[in-house]
Amino acid sequence: MTDKANLQLALEQARSRRDEQLAALQDYLRIPSISTQPQHRDDIYRAAAWLAQFMTDSGLHNARVVETGGHPAVYGEWLENPGAPTVLVYGHYDVQPIDPIELWHHDPFGAEVVGDRIYARGASDNKAQHFSHVEAVRAILDATGSLPLNLKFLIDGEEEIGSPVLPSFVAEHTEMLAADSVIVSDGGMIRPGQPTLNHALRGVADFEVHVSGPARDLHSGSHGGAVHNPAQALAEMISKLHDDQGRVAVPGFYDQVVELTGEERALLAERDYDEAQWREDTGAPAPWGEVGYSILERRTVRPTLEVNGIWGGYTGPGMKTVLPAEAHAKLTTRLVARQDPARIQKLVAEHIMALAPPTVRVTVDTGAASAAAVTAYDGPEVQAAMAAQRAVWGVEPVLNRNGGSLPILATFQEVLGAPFLALPLGLDDNRHAPDEHYGLEYLYKGIETAIRYYYNYAEETKKH
Amino acid sequence: MTDKANLQLALEQARSRRDEQLAALQDYLRIPSISTQPQHRDDIYRAAAWLAQFMTDSGLHNARVVETGGHPAVYGEWLENPGAPTVLVYGHYDVQPIDPIELWHHDPFGAEVVGDRIYARGASDNKAQHFSHVEAVRAILDATGSLPLNLKFLIDGEEEIGSPVLPSFVAEHTEMLAADSVIVSDGGMIRPGQPTLNHALRGVADFEVHVSGPARDLHSGSHGGAVHNPAQALAEMISKLHDDQGRVAVPGFYDQVVELTGEERALLAERDYDEAQWREDTGAPAPWGEVGYSILERRTVRPTLEVNGIWGGYTGPGMKTVLPAEAHAKLTTRLVARQDPARIQKLVAEHIMALAPPTVRVTVDTGAASAAAVTAYDGPEVQAAMAAQRAVWGVEPVLNRNGGSLPILATFQEVLGAPFLALPLGLDDNRHAPDEHYGLEYLYKGIETAIRYYYNYAEETKKH
Repeated sequence: MTDKANLQLALEQARSRRDEQLAALQDYLRIPSISTQPQHRDDIYRAAAWLAQFMTDSGLHNARVVETGGHPAVYGEWLENPGAPTVLVYGHYDVQPIDPIELWHHDPFGAEVVGDRIYARGASDNKAQHFSHVEAVRAILDATGSLPLNLKFLIDGEEEIGSPVLPSFVAEHTEMLAADSVIVSDGGMIRPGQPTLNHALRGVADFEVHVSGPARDLHSGSHGGAVHNPAQALAEMISKLHDDQGRVAVPGFYDQVVELTGEERALLAERDYDEAQWREDTGAPAPWGEVGYSILERRTVRPTLEVNGIWGGYTGPGMKTVLPAEAHAKLTTRLVARQDPARIQKLVAEHIMALAPPTVRVTVDTGAASAAAVTAYDGPEVQAAMAAQRAVWGVEPVLNRNGGSLPILATFQEVLGAPFLALPLGLDDNRHAPDEHYGLEYLYKGIETAIRYYYNYAEETKKH
Repeated sequence: MTDKANLQLALEQARSRRDEQLAALQDYLRIPSISTQPQHRDDIYRAAAWLAQFMTDSGLHNARVVETGGHPAVYGEWLENPGAPTVLVYGHYDVQPIDPIELWHHDPFGAEVVGDRIYARGASDNKAQHFSHVEAVRAILDATGSLPLNLKFLIDGEEEIGSPVLPSFVAEHTEMLAADSVIVSDGGMIRPGQPTLNHALRGVADFEVHVSGPARDLHSGSHGGAVHNPAQALAEMISKLHDDQGRVAVPGFYDQVVELTGEERALLAERDYDEAQWREDTGAPAPWGEVGYSILERRTVRPTLEVNGIWGGYTGPGMKTVLPAEAHAKLTTRLVARQDPARIQKLVAEHIMALAPPTVRVTVDTGAASAAAVTAYDGPEVQAAMAAQRAVWGVEPVLNRNGGSLPILATFQEVLGAPFLALPLGLDDNRHAPDEHYGLEYLYKGIETAIRYYYNYAEETKKH
């Protein structure tokens, strides 16, 4: 059989299994594998075990739950094609928390199918996407008995908490994970029906700011006016994190940022992402951000500093005349190429401490940090992926920079020397928000895209 | 029998009943009558019914739960002394919420006695304090068969939510509530063992600010940098509510504020409330507030604007890279004499709306509002109370202004024409905070203070 004939057989095999694919994905989505909340630790292990079994059932070898020191990873491989290239498929089985739960219209772990979508936390981010790669393997093996290349899967259990231990795990398992390239299907296409490839991702570092004043909550009538209210003090500090040009006001924050060339800006501008599209994507009343940069540049090639959460005092129904003892904020910064995460962590923390007035006590906790990742866009990975997307969607793919972060990609580049390809199979899909979902069309087309990518990549590497 | 002899009999009777007093108070404190939370509606009625029965058992007449349109009030009376003055005792049986529950070291509704304190939400604010007045009635009646004056009790069920319907209830029941003066035992003495009278209280008005931006929570990596983060926008707005002199920055806010005379400032300065005492009271690192005013002035005679609560985005453990759709704050302002509450509500709401940038959507809800209350300090109420405190504590009482608010006192002055006396029987006692408590010494001395006050007041009114 030629590869072309095998490809057709594999695609047909995949199409014949759609009911089973959907049912298996539902099983997987019903496991609430929230990595950031300790009460879901058992669910994390259940999800990992489910996935390892699913890999084995799909024909992968040596599929197993691998201890990492944090939440376990899941590994599987198929290495029976000597001489062909080896691709490492990265994904994550952990999911975001579900709050604010009251804004969901579907059970976050019900995996309910409504119309042409399946609703669940983790549906798009990231279970359906790496699931699609495993299903692609199954279809090819069932149809032809052999893959056109070698594959390794490493599915993370801590991506949503910044993969704190995975970099050292990768460094300690370079032989096990050695590959010619890494593929990750995460994030979303830029709009429905518009296949998208990402060749750049931002880095990320997170912080928690704690402001305390009085030793305990005080009666705001008895003490208001003479005590610096920690919620007010925190607000005052946060208001000084950006200047009136929308720039991050941390001294030195932009020192390592390389401005885009005119050519690079023109390439981005081709994306045709205008204010109308922005309004549709966000629902916000008017754009905001760094003066002198387009909306798309702000979202992708400029570093940012965001408030992810703020809390202090009484937040229940009605009034409570309390002068709160404490107020808190969670922040993250997104980094672009050349910005050193450790340096940025230090600069941001120092700036926050410099903003702290003597009337309150302030501490800053720094969390995980990772550098931005940028990959070449003229290698066999991009060519193979664009051809796959073109064939599946009948639309010319967009080569994109993405504002999100996949910290481990920087590690793969550095430690394994493997270029990455970020090939999203879904859409925005309310990732990190209520009513996360995944389109059934994207599920089935995603499996076909993965099948085609494996064949195309094996071909492309022969040329290069 | 002379009144002096009767007084001694009543004090002895009260002292003989301490075990029963404590047990009855514990029963009362175990009812979680939180007025602001709908799930405690039944508890509100249980507390009201308990109190009406307790009044009846103590010898008051016509004791009953009275519908007001909101949570019910409890009324009781003893009017068998024609020719003697009539005092209306005001208090409230509703209590504050208990959060943050994790900071309590005692069951908030366990009424546990540890050492010389009883711990419960509502112990000091206000159950033990009006309970002490009812016990004073019981002791006098049990010992002597008759009170030296006429008494009415009106115990509110909505004080902690600003008594929204009580003003109209009072206006509609002027005959039932008619009195020569109003006494309220709420709030605390300025320090342990220092009996305190308050002749001025601040008014209060509350607000909720709602900031929204994107239609739903967004992924902060995908959209950060191009959307005005509602938590950041809220912080920026809050940071502009005060100027760098600690003054409220709302235009017109101080227009109606009457500056104290030199004499009044001197009287306040006599209180000898210094920074060391402030540190002990608050535990905060350094004083804050309006430049040009002493700590005590800031706390009592100057208007304020406080953040009581702030929330938005992800506030659970770990990180969540969300750009929140919404952020919220609860605010209250404290008003001083002459400031019109409705006008201040309007000015504050308008200022907040004027601060709202076009990149987010902002709404302001205004809640209840009440004027400040100030009463003469040379009438029979103050003389009777100071004599009572002097006799019980053996210490010269302090005549004070208090920064807190009892909105209904302005109504009593205006509608009933009755001066008020604010005679706190407890201490700060972590009112509105975790581990609220009440000292047993204050319970027993408070009952004696009430007994003495009734006899003294009957005497004083003969002189005036």
